[in-house]
Amino acid sequence: MSAIQETGGEIDTLSNDILLLFVPFAEKPEWIERITKRFKGLQIRWVNSIRDNHIIVKAEEVSPEKWDGVTLLTSFLPPPAEFIPKVRFVQLTSAGADRWPGHPKYQDENVIFCTTNGIHAPQIAEWVIGVWLSHQHNFLHYAENMKTRFWESPFAARAQDSTNLRIGILGYGAIGRQCARLANALGMEIYAYTRSERATPESRKDDSYCVPGTGDPNGLLPAKWFHGSSRADVNAFLGQDLDLLVISVPLTAETRHILSHEQFDILSAKKTFVANIARGGHIDQDALIEALEKGKIRGAALDVTDPEPFPADHRLWDAPNLFLTPHVSWKTDFLWDRLLDIVELNVGRLARGERLINVVNRTLHY
Amino acid sequence: MSAIQETGGEIDTLSNDILLLFVPFAEKPEWIERITKRFKGLQIRWVNSIRDNHIIVKAEEVSPEKWDGVTLLTSFLPPPAEFIPKVRFVQLTSAGADRWPGHPKYQDENVIFCTTNGIHAPQIAEWVIGVWLSHQHNFLHYAENMKTRFWESPFAARAQDSTNLRIGILGYGAIGRQCARLANALGMEIYAYTRSERATPESRKDDSYCVPGTGDPNGLLPAKWFHGSSRADVNAFLGQDLDLLVISVPLTAETRHILSHEQFDILSAKKTFVANIARGGHIDQDALIEALEKGKIRGAALDVTDPEPFPADHRLWDAPNLFLTPHVSWKTDFLWDRLLDIVELNVGRLARGERLINVVNRTLHY
Repeated sequence: MSAIQETGGEIDTLSNDILLLFVPFAEKPEWIERITKRFKGLQIRWVNSIRDNHIIVKAEEVSPEKWDGVTLLTSFLPPPAEFIPKVRFVQLTSAGADRWPGHPKYQDENVIFCTTNGIHAPQIAEWVIGVWLSHQHNFLHYAENMKTRFWESPFAARAQDSTNLRIGILGYGAIGRQCARLANALGMEIYAYTRSERATPESRKDDSYCVPGTGDPNGLLPAKWFHGSSRADVNAFLGQDLDLLVISVPLTAETRHILSHEQFDILSAKKTFVANIARGGHIDQDALIEALEKGKIRGAALDVTDPEPFPADHRLWDAPNLFLTPHVSWKTDFLWDRLLDIVELNVGRLARGERLINVVNRTLHY
Repeated sequence: MSAIQETGGEIDTLSNDILLLFVPFAEKPEWIERITKRFKGLQIRWVNSIRDNHIIVKAEEVSPEKWDGVTLLTSFLPPPAEFIPKVRFVQLTSAGADRWPGHPKYQDENVIFCTTNGIHAPQIAEWVIGVWLSHQHNFLHYAENMKTRFWESPFAARAQDSTNLRIGILGYGAIGRQCARLANALGMEIYAYTRSERATPESRKDDSYCVPGTGDPNGLLPAKWFHGSSRADVNAFLGQDLDLLVISVPLTAETRHILSHEQFDILSAKKTFVANIARGGHIDQDALIEALEKGKIRGAALDVTDPEPFPADHRLWDAPNLFLTPHVSWKTDFLWDRLLDIVELNVGRLARGERLINVVNRTLHY
């Protein structure tokens, strides 16, 4: 399946190009066939970048003839610059470019870098809303009851549906927008926070890749928008009586420990449930432990921790009302179909001389 | 909060009426005040029908003067007919009228009976989509890992988001419609099944109570509609490569064991995940155990069983990939606000001589 298929017939402007897919999955012949047919003369090479034992293949371990003459590259890790002297387009297989700063090709403004921004949004938003519903409807409590075959009185536990509750989305990018779409369907009120102000309809749009039928590409769902880059701005947002807070901003010096003691105190007014699918460094884990132990927040779900892998002897494991998964919210069987979809889309735009999708900002590296 | 507030000033056409709220929660003075103000002369009485120990209060245990002269009644269980000789309107506190057939007042066509159809839709749909996401994203697996402080490799388990997956909704009423709304936000394809044919836009509408901002009152979300009352009709629907099947039909002789051995064999083609929030009797539990043990379906989540309470020695507890909760999916802190909302709405329509909402069909008893 291809989520976005550009229409039009054969294109021959890539007849001198060589596309290397250095990607963590086996060759998909039907995709190669389609691309080869669409872009006449484009050479396609494929190298699976992950072994059966989950070990990543290094660029140096790939035979040199695979690299020879490559102009278009899809890769996660940067190969040595001398492997790709002719490269003019790099489609990363990740949403950030944090492995690339310092690389000569990344510093070369003539080489276009694009991310996979958007391909993780459906599954990560499902993780967020899933852990929220699991908490609100006591699923883990009932899973425990099952072990002792205990059919508890329906009157014993309380539950709360989400209608008229409020979700705060810290970072309104692709993931945040799909969280908003799901929250909207639940009947929730949506408050969005962005770094820069989004005062106009135009500024609220997001032109990055979006799986059709998902997200909020036009930014129509939030009832209120907040913005800023200071801790005071963030605190003002956290003080909006949020029932659910989603952290979906990139990790930078500015956003490191964006939730610490002061912020959990603010969240304690509504006992906000906190879901973090961004990076472990966003949360001061000592402050989180204290917030959970003292019941300042009703619970937290983390897909990311600091560090990862997360050590067995960490105190956080013992915190009450905590749900933790090992950085898996991005996973889905459909992930690589979406990557190939973006590659196809961008190769098509390149062939027609159009502006690509998901172009990296080389100051922010995403 | 009132989800639906009818506009307009004071009404005095109920000045000879007495409304008894025999409901499982304590008196809400602010509601009484509002109603008393709106409907001049209407007498309101309130009896909490549930004790602190969760035991239901019987009509016979209520002092006779509470019953004296009641014309408008809100109740779950039917009181003896002689308690309510003058009753002309009964607002049930349940979605079905299965406790009432045979009752003289129920047999009297001059007494209008209404259900609470719609007030359970948000929370039950959340339960359905919540158990589905929990299954698809391995939440119970990770909850187990937490107990041994095991941070598993992110590559170990597979997950699948819902985009382009298909949900089949057996019974497209208020609950089914909110399941559809959530599934639509997830990017799923929606197939609806109804007993009678819904060939026209008009026939696809549902005029029962709907919490604002939820559901699919106009029936616009399904990509395909199916209908019928025979087992062959149901089987044809089950054969539509459904990833998720929701059972949301009333329990009748026709729908008893609507899923049995034959149906699980059909579902095995796609290993459909089955969610039942209707009644335990819809599923042949022996057939379900076999289907789960043989891996015919990927899993099942039941909020209802046969019988309830569900005995500790039942074999079903041991079935793999089963999630079971003790008939709690209808629960929410906001339930009774919605009941009062329907009562207010229907009393208002009664006062103005308009057609009520959620009128019981006395052949189908819902």
